[in-house]
Amino acid sequence: MFFASDNSGPVHPNIMQRVMDANNGYAMPYGKDEIMDEVREGIQRTFEAPNAAVYLVATGTAANSIALACYTQPWQTIFCAQYSHIEEDECNAPEFYAGGAKLTLIPTDDKMTPDALSAAIARRPTGNVHMAQAGPVSITQVTEFGSIYSLDELRALTSVAKSAGLPVHLDGARFANAAVALDCTAAEMTWKSGVDVVSFGGTKNGCMGVEAVVFFDEAKAWEFELRRKRGAHLFSKHRYLSAQMAGYLQDDLWRDMARSANAACARLAAGLKQNGAEMLHESQANMIFARFPRRVHQKLQAAGAKYYVLDGDVASGDGDALLAARLVCDWSMTDELINQFLSHF
Amino acid sequence: MFFASDNSGPVHPNIMQRVMDANNGYAMPYGKDEIMDEVREGIQRTFEAPNAAVYLVATGTAANSIALACYTQPWQTIFCAQYSHIEEDECNAPEFYAGGAKLTLIPTDDKMTPDALSAAIARRPTGNVHMAQAGPVSITQVTEFGSIYSLDELRALTSVAKSAGLPVHLDGARFANAAVALDCTAAEMTWKSGVDVVSFGGTKNGCMGVEAVVFFDEAKAWEFELRRKRGAHLFSKHRYLSAQMAGYLQDDLWRDMARSANAACARLAAGLKQNGAEMLHESQANMIFARFPRRVHQKLQAAGAKYYVLDGDVASGDGDALLAARLVCDWSMTDELINQFLSHF
Amino acid sequence: MFFASDNSGPVHPNIMQRVMDANNGYAMPYGKDEIMDEVREGIQRTFEAPNAAVYLVATGTAANSIALACYTQPWQTIFCAQYSHIEEDECNAPEFYAGGAKLTLIPTDDKMTPDALSAAIARRPTGNVHMAQAGPVSITQVTEFGSIYSLDELRALTSVAKSAGLPVHLDGARFANAAVALDCTAAEMTWKSGVDVVSFGGTKNGCMGVEAVVFFDEAKAWEFELRRKRGAHLFSKHRYLSAQMAGYLQDDLWRDMARSANAACARLAAGLKQNGAEMLHESQANMIFARFPRRVHQKLQAAGAKYYVLDGDVASGDGDALLAARLVCDWSMTDELINQFLSHF
Amino acid sequence: MFFASDNSGPVHPNIMQRVMDANNGYAMPYGKDEIMDEVREGIQRTFEAPNAAVYLVATGTAANSIALACYTQPWQTIFCAQYSHIEEDECNAPEFYAGGAKLTLIPTDDKMTPDALSAAIARRPTGNVHMAQAGPVSITQVTEFGSIYSLDELRALTSVAKSAGLPVHLDGARFANAAVALDCTAAEMTWKSGVDVVSFGGTKNGCMGVEAVVFFDEAKAWEFELRRKRGAHLFSKHRYLSAQMAGYLQDDLWRDMARSANAACARLAAGLKQNGAEMLHESQANMIFARFPRRVHQKLQAAGAKYYVLDGDVASGDGDALLAARLVCDWSMTDELINQFLSHF
Repeated sequence: MFFASDNSGPVHPNIMQRVMDANNGYAMPYGKDEIMDEVREGIQRTFEAPNAAVYLVATGTAANSIALACYTQPWQTIFCAQYSHIEEDECNAPEFYAGGAKLTLIPTDDKMTPDALSAAIARRPTGNVHMAQAGPVSITQVTEFGSIYSLDELRALTSVAKSAGLPVHLDGARFANAAVALDCTAAEMTWKSGVDVVSFGGTKNGCMGVEAVVFFDEAKAWEFELRRKRGAHLFSKHRYLSAQMAGYLQDDLWRDMARSANAACARLAAGLKQNGAEMLHESQANMIFARFPRRVHQKLQAAGAKYYVLDGDVASGDGDALLAARLVCDWSMTDELINQFLSHF
Repeated sequence: MFFASDNSGPVHPNIMQRVMDANNGYAMPYGKDEIMDEVREGIQRTFEAPNAAVYLVATGTAANSIALACYTQPWQTIFCAQYSHIEEDECNAPEFYAGGAKLTLIPTDDKMTPDALSAAIARRPTGNVHMAQAGPVSITQVTEFGSIYSLDELRALTSVAKSAGLPVHLDGARFANAAVALDCTAAEMTWKSGVDVVSFGGTKNGCMGVEAVVFFDEAKAWEFELRRKRGAHLFSKHRYLSAQMAGYLQDDLWRDMARSANAACARLAAGLKQNGAEMLHESQANMIFARFPRRVHQKLQAAGAKYYVLDGDVASGDGDALLAARLVCDWSMTDELINQFLSHF
Repeated sequence: MFFASDNSGPVHPNIMQRVMDANNGYAMPYGKDEIMDEVREGIQRTFEAPNAAVYLVATGTAANSIALACYTQPWQTIFCAQYSHIEEDECNAPEFYAGGAKLTLIPTDDKMTPDALSAAIARRPTGNVHMAQAGPVSITQVTEFGSIYSLDELRALTSVAKSAGLPVHLDGARFANAAVALDCTAAEMTWKSGVDVVSFGGTKNGCMGVEAVVFFDEAKAWEFELRRKRGAHLFSKHRYLSAQMAGYLQDDLWRDMARSANAACARLAAGLKQNGAEMLHESQANMIFARFPRRVHQKLQAAGAKYYVLDGDVASGDGDALLAARLVCDWSMTDELINQFLSHF
Repeated sequence: MFFASDNSGPVHPNIMQRVMDANNGYAMPYGKDEIMDEVREGIQRTFEAPNAAVYLVATGTAANSIALACYTQPWQTIFCAQYSHIEEDECNAPEFYAGGAKLTLIPTDDKMTPDALSAAIARRPTGNVHMAQAGPVSITQVTEFGSIYSLDELRALTSVAKSAGLPVHLDGARFANAAVALDCTAAEMTWKSGVDVVSFGGTKNGCMGVEAVVFFDEAKAWEFELRRKRGAHLFSKHRYLSAQMAGYLQDDLWRDMARSANAACARLAAGLKQNGAEMLHESQANMIFARFPRRVHQKLQAAGAKYYVLDGDVASGDGDALLAARLVCDWSMTDELINQFLSHF
């Protein structure tokens, strides 16, 4: 019963097979492998962007930080939601890669609103040398709380950025989960909605460790290559990154896996509600934030269930005391495990 | 006939098998996986260093840059050989990770000499605020030209560093090739010779993409963890890095593969000499720098052989003109390919 | 009628005289001048800290940024009030000097509260490698809104920092104004209240361009010297910085000038209140934030008065509409100018 | 007898007078003062560059580092002479400001040669992602050894840079000494010879602490302003920087002072030669590198003379042993002091 994170599950067998298939004789290193050509075309087709520049790195933090650095000067600030991954979970990697730039947190419980974004940008007027200058806007889709921006919401945010002349980055560590939930195309969720660069996540959705960075403006290509190398993220045996992403794209496996993860999560959410748990955020993708009694928690722990407790006094003696927990499902989650989990309520 | 680099060959089947075996259910992320425990113990046993701090990253540049950063202040300079990898092939990654530190190049055609190192350190006296301050010494074993420091040579360099109070880093991207060539233990080539931290390479020697950073002073452990995370090099699905390194260590596979690579290289070198090629550096590990006529080069190219031409006029019309080439053998190089290569002389 | 900033007034004649007196023959460069010995002793006596390490730089941003960098690792975050100078007015200089560290803003309208600080620190628990680690606490005295922390308030904040093991920096760009308002000693407002390093401002209080950085822990001395040089803030003709600070300290001129500035400000505040202006913050030092009608603003502008309008629609046609303005007095402000200003109400 | 450095002499009275004159009432801060308008026009006229962007900072290291940063990406390398000031005497400030860029040292005893520069640039071919990319060329005029590039030599270097598409920076800490020695205009020594940005030094030539950074391509203006602020080098009471530079430019005082310094140096050099001292570099500006016996050194020390000993065993018992010394003259050096110095030979 492993609901701690979607970065803890196994690699999909199709992807593992592609990695094994790639292990054949010699291949050109550093992204010049033939499988990378397949990946590039696959991404360009998937995103309906025949000129997109496409690169692979092995971690989501690398994808976000290096992509953002290409759009950020060291004297600028990146606008992002208060509890975004780049603020909370990347140990100053965005600041590091952007040479000491700042992050400006848009106050919110979850999703950024256009008004709040607009107000924050307005506080950084052009031409005031004393303050950090306005830099890119970074949007996380799916958010850290499992919510999803509708295409309209996305466009409302990118409009605010565009009218201030600011570029837009999409942190898509869970891009696939959002795309299937919205039932939209990769293009609709990115450049058709005003996104300039996207971190297209694979690791959390059945890959071993691979993320694609996709620039819709190919002018940033060479800078990204240099920043990736300087960050020590250019793989010599790159074919094993390529193979993962090739398998991920093949027959839209990325959508299939996300669909499985979201469906499992929906079943778990329904079961939790039926059992009286209180949902803290509406579960739209593959994450649940729910409150349930400490006594249930104790039974789940005893049974070996893994998940994060975010709030509440675990050590309390009161079995009725409510704890807030985060539960995540990946592509491999089974009905059996979900039922086993729910049986402890 | 792929002699371009040891980063272009396949992964050893034992290592690939360990990766597949690891793909089973859920595992704790970020280096808390159980296979990492096996790796840590394996490294500590291999290096006879029960308290060593052991970490994995996926690229050699990451291993070098983050390890060095733990010993370098931004106002210091790192001493290294003139043509070392950290100077020539890492696109300012060491400077980036060390916050803008400098590299001081010790003049040499290949290996650093104690005298030259000593002279360079003497030019950075303690207490002169105007100049970059003396920082760590970084030694590459095997060198970029395929040479190997004997244990005595290594100790002579680390003595110079130690008497100036400077820490020592060993860039061991080809650590295994050196250890088998010297027929010495991992401990003898590191802490027993005065090395404080080593990049223990796996990628160039039959792994997919993994390097261990081993600190003999565990006081640097937490700083390394923070720098690795901030550099975006902490893998969530870390078990697939661990699995590679576990397979690499198992039954000393790392030594076996290096032995194969070195032996193949020795056969190739003998054949080249027999065929009149001039050796530019003595081939001690798995790299050859040799000069042979342009006419041979043309036949090899036509036959599909891959290697780097370092010097000489490839476009010349003179078939007798000599070109300098670099030839590298990895663990998988066969007698058949070597003979095929030599047949064009 | 120049109320725009205390950085726009003239240098006190005593200080100018010291600069002229220093211009005599040759002097040792880079802080080895004899006047610097006088400054060091003067600061140590003034702060009752005989072992304090004392350095001069020419700008407040340099003092803050380099002092903070000595206490901040690049993977840490600096805690400061939401609208502090280091966040709002230094164009990422603190992040630059601290190698890409973060600033965590403590929500507040003006002064930091111990509870809010405590809550922010609690969100950065030791040992979580994913997030920015807790770093120093930076307190501004006088605040950007002209308020002053009482010694009790100061100690309450430093207690929070100390119990979390965090060092404390005091941004004292207007240190003198606070010290005379609180009628306390320099020692009481710093190390006796738990401050580890202070930027002791001179520029805004009658100097030409000089700030002292005072470390009560001399262990940071050499690091500061290297960081100052690397930041290009070590003056060759240092005697002219020393001369300013020597004049500033002599016969407590720094307190006299601050007393004049505060007194002028108090007179202006009283006059504004009498004339119906609404005070936005209690004026405790030499800054006033007040709201008055647009029609008065227009008369003042016509008469050549200089000050910042922070809020309100200047372009409105409504003469009764209220504008928020910031008014600052320096040591040289005269009753005549104040009366002239008030005459337009 | 102070021959240690031209940064240790007094400020010229005309410049001091301008500083005092500036100390009158209120002035706009941060470079918006009226004297800065005079400076801007003065520089533009002096350099025959009506569109040049002109900025002031207080130290030579700031001028060099911030100017270079505007032309350097963090993954590039700056080409400079082996013993240039930016390599030897700025404690990694250029690397710091350029975000971790590298310096590539052109091997030379003193001046860079076009061939050596060309060879170094050729080793950084465009498009090789593994290595530091070619960045700007920085030339020092007067060199650290007191030599001067002729206009032809200067143009030969900038031609090499231009044909590789690289920008050129001139470190002109002793610009004035070179200009009067070459009897050329400021324009001839800069943009007419292919220089893109110059650090026009004042501090070493009779100012208190001021350097102008002059961009002949005004497109870099705003970036410089932001980098200057972020580096904490934007002065609030900027008028006192402006006043120095205004005085420096007025009636070509900068040339007069340099002429005095060079002439004093020539007299000293002639006297040294007459007395049998060996000149190590030809003295073309205001610096002498000479070798003379230890016995003379001892007499000079006893008489209180100040200068740097660069080489030779000061502690030796042998009075005939030769020591190498650096002697520098500034604008204020008198015949009396020179004669006094020579009397000890």
